[in-house]
Amino acid sequence: MEERLQNYKLLIQYEGTRYKGWQSQEGTEQTIQGKLTRILERMTGKPVDLKGAGRTDAGVHARGQVAHVRLGTEQSPKEIRDYLNRYLPEDIAVLEVTAVDERFHSRLHAVRKTYVYRIWNRQIPNVFLRRFAAHVEEPLDVEAMRRAAGNLKGTHDFLSFCTRRKIKKSTVRTVEEILIEELEGEIRLTFTGDGFLYHMVRILVGTLVEVGLHQREPEEMEEIFAAKSRDRAGRLMPGRGLILWNVEYPQGPQEI
Amino acid sequence: MEERLQNYKLLIQYEGTRYKGWQSQEGTEQTIQGKLTRILERMTGKPVDLKGAGRTDAGVHARGQVAHVRLGTEQSPKEIRDYLNRYLPEDIAVLEVTAVDERFHSRLHAVRKTYVYRIWNRQIPNVFLRRFAAHVEEPLDVEAMRRAAGNLKGTHDFLSFCTRRKIKKSTVRTVEEILIEELEGEIRLTFTGDGFLYHMVRILVGTLVEVGLHQREPEEMEEIFAAKSRDRAGRLMPGRGLILWNVEYPQGPQEI
Repeated sequence: MEERLQNYKLLIQYEGTRYKGWQSQEGTEQTIQGKLTRILERMTGKPVDLKGAGRTDAGVHARGQVAHVRLGTEQSPKEIRDYLNRYLPEDIAVLEVTAVDERFHSRLHAVRKTYVYRIWNRQIPNVFLRRFAAHVEEPLDVEAMRRAAGNLKGTHDFLSFCTRRKIKKSTVRTVEEILIEELEGEIRLTFTGDGFLYHMVRILVGTLVEVGLHQREPEEMEEIFAAKSRDRAGRLMPGRGLILWNVEYPQGPQEI
Repeated sequence: MEERLQNYKLLIQYEGTRYKGWQSQEGTEQTIQGKLTRILERMTGKPVDLKGAGRTDAGVHARGQVAHVRLGTEQSPKEIRDYLNRYLPEDIAVLEVTAVDERFHSRLHAVRKTYVYRIWNRQIPNVFLRRFAAHVEEPLDVEAMRRAAGNLKGTHDFLSFCTRRKIKKSTVRTVEEILIEELEGEIRLTFTGDGFLYHMVRILVGTLVEVGLHQREPEEMEEIFAAKSRDRAGRLMPGRGLILWNVEYPQGPQEI
């Protein structure tokens, strides 16, 4: 008799510093997905296939990563959550486990994602943010960055703003919002959109930083889009400043 | 001819996680004071005597530790600061170096210190705060804690709230303010006073946590003061939740 598998949605938080990212090409490396998978396999005694909504890179953090996985277990969602947290290292935590419709897919059904990028913008480094922010020593012109961000928002072909991985897939995305906040010594950029290409947030931030340093004009953004060439956009910012903030799904009878 | 020594005030920030504290009894251990001293001795080629305003314990952090040191050097204060930051590990940073009057003493002249203690108060741990906050899983009654804090404020003999180190010194201190804030999932306690005894903030927080868990009454504080016995106060909270926030000095012609 075949065991009935239940689909579960997981809400996951991690500090990415020690990891090669959510998932890596080589199976032997230390990844967040790998850590979670091994514990779930030990719990159920079966191979499991855990899929995440966003493949965060090495050093990138998540406040609200979402994943889904089908499991055959007698345990309640809360018991699964507590089992995971008991065996996970202290830089990964599972905040919620929810039983969901068998068709729920964390990546394909995501309608909106929010990423936050933090920049420490004083000459002297901040010892408390060194794992969570990029350090830019020279003062950034935030008003110029906001003007450039206005030109990056909307629906565009973001080919120039990504590192190509797969050929022939569409590189058109909609960035609904780019919020740039000035905190005490920190500049925090929040990106909300329907999806982000490989390295896209980090290259958008790198381009905005070059605007903030007056190495580029806010009006250049249109030319960069038109060029459809990675070489025209700005630098790739380090992974440690990036946080997958949350992933949104349509309202509906997902949870059962 | 004797070299003229100039007195300098240093403003220092550190994450205490990897250290045995600001200073330790055994000279061989890893301390913040030791790291700074070795770099200053390399810079000047002479032994230096660096003194801090507060001796933070193992794991305790500082946002604004102050120290003073007499140095014979041709370098400007800014050059001294940059030299230190070039050789310091990334969990220690010197924010400011100021030339001060030769009589300035970072500990003896401090008139007010502020410490912050952070508690993560949700069942699931917060991966981002694990080095910077204590974790209390059960929800705390913040209103009861505020009532108890009101009874702890003021000028008292805090003997019951410290671990005794030196005998016969006065244990009377004035705690001007205890602010308890509720943030998202976090409870943050800010203590301002003229001075704090060994372990005093961590024991005050432990006592307030026991009030917040309804293991003690806010009205008990007077009895604890009167008992003059460490056994009557609450638990010692872990060092990682504590931050030396800042140290204040009287207005005056300190800086030259």
